[in-house]
Amino acid sequence: MRPCGGFSSLFVDLYELTMAQAYFFEGLEGEAVFSVFVRRLPENRNFLISCGLEQVLCFLEGACFSSEEIDYLYGLGLFKDEFLDWLRSFSFTGDVYALPEGTVFFENEPVLEVVAPVAQAQLLETYILNQLQFQILIATKGARITLSSRDRKVVDFGCRRAHGTDAGIKAARAFYVGGVQATSNVLAGKIYNIPVTGTMAHSYIQVHGKELEAFKRFSSLYPETILLIDTYSIEEGVRRVIELANILGKDFKVRGVRIDSSDLTEVSRMVRKMLDEAGLYQLKIFVSGGLDEYSIAEIVSNNVPIDGFGIGTKSIVSSDCPYLDIVYKLVQYEGMGKLKTSAEKTTIPFQKQVFRYVEDGLYTHDVLAIHSEILPGNPLIKPVMRGGKRLSPPEELSLIRDRCQEEIKRLPPHLLSLSKSKEPYPVRLSKVLEESFNQMRQLN
Amino acid sequence: MRPCGGFSSLFVDLYELTMAQAYFFEGLEGEAVFSVFVRRLPENRNFLISCGLEQVLCFLEGACFSSEEIDYLYGLGLFKDEFLDWLRSFSFTGDVYALPEGTVFFENEPVLEVVAPVAQAQLLETYILNQLQFQILIATKGARITLSSRDRKVVDFGCRRAHGTDAGIKAARAFYVGGVQATSNVLAGKIYNIPVTGTMAHSYIQVHGKELEAFKRFSSLYPETILLIDTYSIEEGVRRVIELANILGKDFKVRGVRIDSSDLTEVSRMVRKMLDEAGLYQLKIFVSGGLDEYSIAEIVSNNVPIDGFGIGTKSIVSSDCPYLDIVYKLVQYEGMGKLKTSAEKTTIPFQKQVFRYVEDGLYTHDVLAIHSEILPGNPLIKPVMRGGKRLSPPEELSLIRDRCQEEIKRLPPHLLSLSKSKEPYPVRLSKVLEESFNQMRQLN
Repeated sequence: MRPCGGFSSLFVDLYELTMAQAYFFEGLEGEAVFSVFVRRLPENRNFLISCGLEQVLCFLEGACFSSEEIDYLYGLGLFKDEFLDWLRSFSFTGDVYALPEGTVFFENEPVLEVVAPVAQAQLLETYILNQLQFQILIATKGARITLSSRDRKVVDFGCRRAHGTDAGIKAARAFYVGGVQATSNVLAGKIYNIPVTGTMAHSYIQVHGKELEAFKRFSSLYPETILLIDTYSIEEGVRRVIELANILGKDFKVRGVRIDSSDLTEVSRMVRKMLDEAGLYQLKIFVSGGLDEYSIAEIVSNNVPIDGFGIGTKSIVSSDCPYLDIVYKLVQYEGMGKLKTSAEKTTIPFQKQVFRYVEDGLYTHDVLAIHSEILPGNPLIKPVMRGGKRLSPPEELSLIRDRCQEEIKRLPPHLLSLSKSKEPYPVRLSKVLEESFNQMRQLN
Repeated sequence: MRPCGGFSSLFVDLYELTMAQAYFFEGLEGEAVFSVFVRRLPENRNFLISCGLEQVLCFLEGACFSSEEIDYLYGLGLFKDEFLDWLRSFSFTGDVYALPEGTVFFENEPVLEVVAPVAQAQLLETYILNQLQFQILIATKGARITLSSRDRKVVDFGCRRAHGTDAGIKAARAFYVGGVQATSNVLAGKIYNIPVTGTMAHSYIQVHGKELEAFKRFSSLYPETILLIDTYSIEEGVRRVIELANILGKDFKVRGVRIDSSDLTEVSRMVRKMLDEAGLYQLKIFVSGGLDEYSIAEIVSNNVPIDGFGIGTKSIVSSDCPYLDIVYKLVQYEGMGKLKTSAEKTTIPFQKQVFRYVEDGLYTHDVLAIHSEILPGNPLIKPVMRGGKRLSPPEELSLIRDRCQEEIKRLPPHLLSLSKSKEPYPVRLSKVLEESFNQMRQLN
């Protein structure tokens, strides 16, 4: 087992290994700075939430190549013995600077920067992007859903529709950071100490045939359960819940009902009315089925009597925006700023710092500066690893989650809209950075 | 380590465990049949490709709960000792029937069916759906991209933008099944014996500053490489390649150039013209950057001089369709058909077989039948596991890939369109299944 449960360092794109070998034989060992940032905020997003740093640090601490992996590389016929020997003793010895998880950030702002000999830094590209992109996407999705649900309960039911197991587990973590309250995913609950929850499936009702029988049996084992009422007719389902309440009397402790189909607005109103008429005011209504921030916002703004949401399919793949334009770019080599001038893909040179400015408790703008600059705002990027070693133990997930909620409170209110604001959050370049950038562009 | 490299059986939704405990204490051990199928073909899809069976079988063979996992469950306070003891000795003892990987299928057709005591079958839901959905999505995406590329080379560059590591690895496998020729993902190459390939990144050019210097050095180590020409100006980039060819003369073995930005159609034509004028006819042009079946089809139909494509971001998340309406539903219990009549989510009862009919080498229609029926067409669903043991060793991936290509050749040509055909492939119910289904619906 790799240290820290780390993941195989062979999770790279082949070109990282061929470039590393080239650097090795050229004797190029200069210090490179690679910067991870999002080039453009995607459609409908006015901010992003940083997330996934912990997994990256864990990977960096344990990065290494096993002999079985080296043997595979040897078999490819592309790599020479001296380089494979170098890989055999590979470990990450560089420094990392990053935004703390749960921080809001904007386009062109570094989420993470790696400072290391160029071949080392190059080998980390794929894993870092893979982990940060997905958790940023989902933490941001979670924050948007939390905003749109206005204090109603939201639970992650998505792992079955996530893209693979890693996405299922990391999504539970990132949703939680974004404000989602619990997950149905037991493994994620165990790994990250996230509250786990769940109700019942249609199959349970079907095995028992009659809904009343299924409700009776399930609630006798789990008195405070949520009963699923749409296996057959929802109206009949509610009648069976009411019947159960009448049979059990004071022993009826069921907390609510769940609906997973139909026009949720219409049926929730019917169900609420039926429950209220039976005096079952305390029963909550939970819904699930293709929900995301847009459908939840509509339900909430129409005052539909729904108390909680299970989010799944559309949310866990971030279906309105399933990827980010996130990159890992060389911005500095041996102390010199580096840039790329490809059409629409120009990168801003130099290792950086982001300064954030606050007025009346709200963020007003950020300034992107060269790392060594000292400006009046709050510097957001912190050193997190030095010489391959973490500078502090992993942060508690609840702390990251609290930070995220605090951050969102400080955003200018117009940026909380679910659609793109016409007034994006201002991210400026410091004078020094702007002048250096302009000079370099003229030279290229 | 779990047998077969299997994944933690705690990757479940909590309700599967609470239902399993309910079945346990109710003494319900009847044989259940759960069926995995896609309720509706998504937008723009006229067929799907089955994929991911091997990973499911591997998981089922190794399914078990470790004592650490049992301890966690105990700590949740929801589970009683007798049930936890049952989990401690859990293994899968059921039967599995499935479509061979690489088979084309349509809505409501079972991809896989599990026949097992109900509590066992219930516990497998999340992993099975999680693995099958994603690989089906990506094998189908790969097949569509292969169709649209018309024999030009296609390589998977997507792992950095996949949703987590598992998606990165499984996508490489599923793309390969769909017809993609290689992957940049070294770990996937190692695990699945898929050809790996790659070129160079902009950072390599930037470290060397001058393109010519970088091209010289890289091609001296990798003479048959592909040179990336858009770090600065593409026109200048091509001039440097031509310069290198002049310097090296007969030793110039470079196979091609890659462009990762700009209007690919326009610049490819310019690059082709420049290379041809320099007599470098043999150099191929590869492109990458936000490609999927739609942009590739446009490039190909416009006869743009591009020889190969690197697919990444949009393809690996299947951005035009990032999820399937795929479900794991109880269809039979103790020999009796089971159905659910929720609005728009009705399920067809009974363990099934799919019969496919062929005329002049092309598929004409399928008939969904009850598993025990014998009809004239080709039965597609095969027994793959009995009593928890595989009935045959894992299939070679190349065989699955070949099957997929054969299958696509047999599809009626109008279904090969990238948009939804007005004439969907006919999937009918057998008389027996239809009559039973109708009777059951009337009773509910």
